[in-house]
Amino acid sequence: MAGDTPAGAGLASIIQFEHRPGILDLGWGHPLPALLPVDGWARAVAAASRDFGWQALTYGRSAGPGPLVDWLAEHLSRLEAGGTTPRQTFVTAGASHALSLVTGLLTKPGDTVLVDSPTYHLVFPIFADHGVRLVSVPADDDGVDPVALAGLLGRLGRVRLLYLVPTFGNPTGRSLPAERRQALVRLAQRERVTVVEDDTYRELVYDGPAPPSLWRLAEGSGVVRIGTFSKTVAPGLRLGWINADPAVVRRLAGLGYVDSGGGVNHAAALAMASFATSGAYDEHVAKIRGEYRRQRDALTTAVPQAPVPAGGWFTWLRLPPGVRAADLLSRAERNGVSFVPGPRFHLDGNGSADRIRLSFSHLPPETLAVAGARLAETIAATEAHG
Amino acid sequence: MAGDTPAGAGLASIIQFEHRPGILDLGWGHPLPALLPVDGWARAVAAASRDFGWQALTYGRSAGPGPLVDWLAEHLSRLEAGGTTPRQTFVTAGASHALSLVTGLLTKPGDTVLVDSPTYHLVFPIFADHGVRLVSVPADDDGVDPVALAGLLGRLGRVRLLYLVPTFGNPTGRSLPAERRQALVRLAQRERVTVVEDDTYRELVYDGPAPPSLWRLAEGSGVVRIGTFSKTVAPGLRLGWINADPAVVRRLAGLGYVDSGGGVNHAAALAMASFATSGAYDEHVAKIRGEYRRQRDALTTAVPQAPVPAGGWFTWLRLPPGVRAADLLSRAERNGVSFVPGPRFHLDGNGSADRIRLSFSHLPPETLAVAGARLAETIAATEAHG
Repeated sequence: MAGDTPAGAGLASIIQFEHRPGILDLGWGHPLPALLPVDGWARAVAAASRDFGWQALTYGRSAGPGPLVDWLAEHLSRLEAGGTTPRQTFVTAGASHALSLVTGLLTKPGDTVLVDSPTYHLVFPIFADHGVRLVSVPADDDGVDPVALAGLLGRLGRVRLLYLVPTFGNPTGRSLPAERRQALVRLAQRERVTVVEDDTYRELVYDGPAPPSLWRLAEGSGVVRIGTFSKTVAPGLRLGWINADPAVVRRLAGLGYVDSGGGVNHAAALAMASFATSGAYDEHVAKIRGEYRRQRDALTTAVPQAPVPAGGWFTWLRLPPGVRAADLLSRAERNGVSFVPGPRFHLDGNGSADRIRLSFSHLPPETLAVAGARLAETIAATEAHG
Repeated sequence: MAGDTPAGAGLASIIQFEHRPGILDLGWGHPLPALLPVDGWARAVAAASRDFGWQALTYGRSAGPGPLVDWLAEHLSRLEAGGTTPRQTFVTAGASHALSLVTGLLTKPGDTVLVDSPTYHLVFPIFADHGVRLVSVPADDDGVDPVALAGLLGRLGRVRLLYLVPTFGNPTGRSLPAERRQALVRLAQRERVTVVEDDTYRELVYDGPAPPSLWRLAEGSGVVRIGTFSKTVAPGLRLGWINADPAVVRRLAGLGYVDSGGGVNHAAALAMASFATSGAYDEHVAKIRGEYRRQRDALTTAVPQAPVPAGGWFTWLRLPPGVRAADLLSRAERNGVSFVPGPRFHLDGNGSADRIRLSFSHLPPETLAVAGARLAETIAATEAHG
């Protein structure tokens, strides 16, 4: 990472990360720079240039270019023994863009949208920009509670969408249990609530297989799945996808903005097709899976109280009795480590006051060990003197 | 172009263009494939990979990476002797994306938005997707009539936006006269209507300098300018920009979707920075300007009634008395040539019944000569027998 040098200042004008001198920041869900496939991606772009020539540079097919759409459908079906076809696939400019497109298409201002609790906090402003009314779903340590949700739905009237990250979730790193997945899908189908499944972390699995997606369980009915290459390849590419009923895919492709500009990230999509079909994708994901596993282990070894998630980029730490996340943050930063306090992942900022999210994606194992030690030390000191 | 072969069928799954066997199609505002900088772009991506490494692949600065934003501000200021700063610049995923972002930011459903008449027709669905009420502005052969517009504004109540393509416009190829530009900017500032200036064609100028932008005349106040690399470099990159007041740029950068995903087309933006700062951009634009001029001349020579636009990709042909665009289309297609009838560029499909838009961007000069001859022949035959 850049320091507080002129070079560091220059960096801040290029990337999103803000370096704070002296602080090892476990707050950012960003990739470790060394794991970004700089050479591999350059080769993929060169290959796409050879393979597709001018076709990669002109207006692209609205739902995404065939070579990537076809590969995605095959790849996703390989991960879960079927379940995804090209006609159910729309290429987006990243997961956030996908969520914004889906929200714009399937809601009107004033509509009710449910969000998991806690959940990925940066979706709150995305929904707010669309003017929908957000309501938190009842959830416990296992995630969304379908029984309590059924009660809530009975009280709320028409609900358009339910957003959640059920697999290696942000912020918890946990996955919704199998029986809740089934119950949630059945409930949503019955109540005609579209489930928006943010499946960002599926392929970053470290122990055992990932659980089946809600999309797969629902057999494509009533679930819209969002996927992305941001974690598996590189976020700067702004490339992701939506899996949805073919009628929804056609409506996305027919949006005015898409019809006017063609495929929303065409050149990058064809470069990804080359990256994927060359085998570089599988090789790269296998490699980073091992590296992120090592990073996970380094952090959770240094912070023994932290759960060891089976996948994803985060662990969700419960603080000792009497230690509040908000209070811990300033002490921790004075001790050279940072994180995101639990309440940020709740709609109203209330909830998880005794939890913190730690990201192990952004720093190498040896640095995570130092950061974790600083954090454990701060927690112990706070507990002792709190 | 691909023919109706298996290869042609494959192509249709990659790009937006639909080939119709036997028809030379003057309807598409697409670039000539041979003018897309396949090798130059591949070099730019390789250079960006060397220059920026992992920084090109991680989450990018929300308003766009400094190297491109800085170059854009300098470049645009060079074109018009000042007037654009980095703080007034937001990098987008193309012009259509820019328009969708601006509309989402500056309007609410039900708000009134004015559009030029005729104007770029594919913006109608973009606005419709945002639920705004569209009203056509009074216009004549010179474009928007500021005096009549003032009267309309008096009757309409609050109007949020006025969209137009004042320079080498789509569909007319014409530019708004200087005195109307001044009057329009003053009127819009006084009435607090934000002018959305689609400046897509500014750099494709063939005769003399392009007129000053409304953005430049307004000194950045009350005008939002949309620019794009789609015509100058390649539409498949999905890369454009917005020039606006710094407060608007900050609001764009603060959109939930942008905050969550970072710069909306980060890797492509840094590759464009390399393309631009290496000099390849200027060299390429000079080259295609010459080529598109030749294409313009080939078409307007073959169709002597067609005006010779000073820039852009289109000429706007008035048909002889008694010949209607809608009727001419089927005859022309039977004769192996196509175009877009004038009414399509009007909000309600009424207007310009005796006009057709011809694009000279998509076919090489020799093909344009054939297409033009077929069209001229069809018009003459229709006139004679109509």
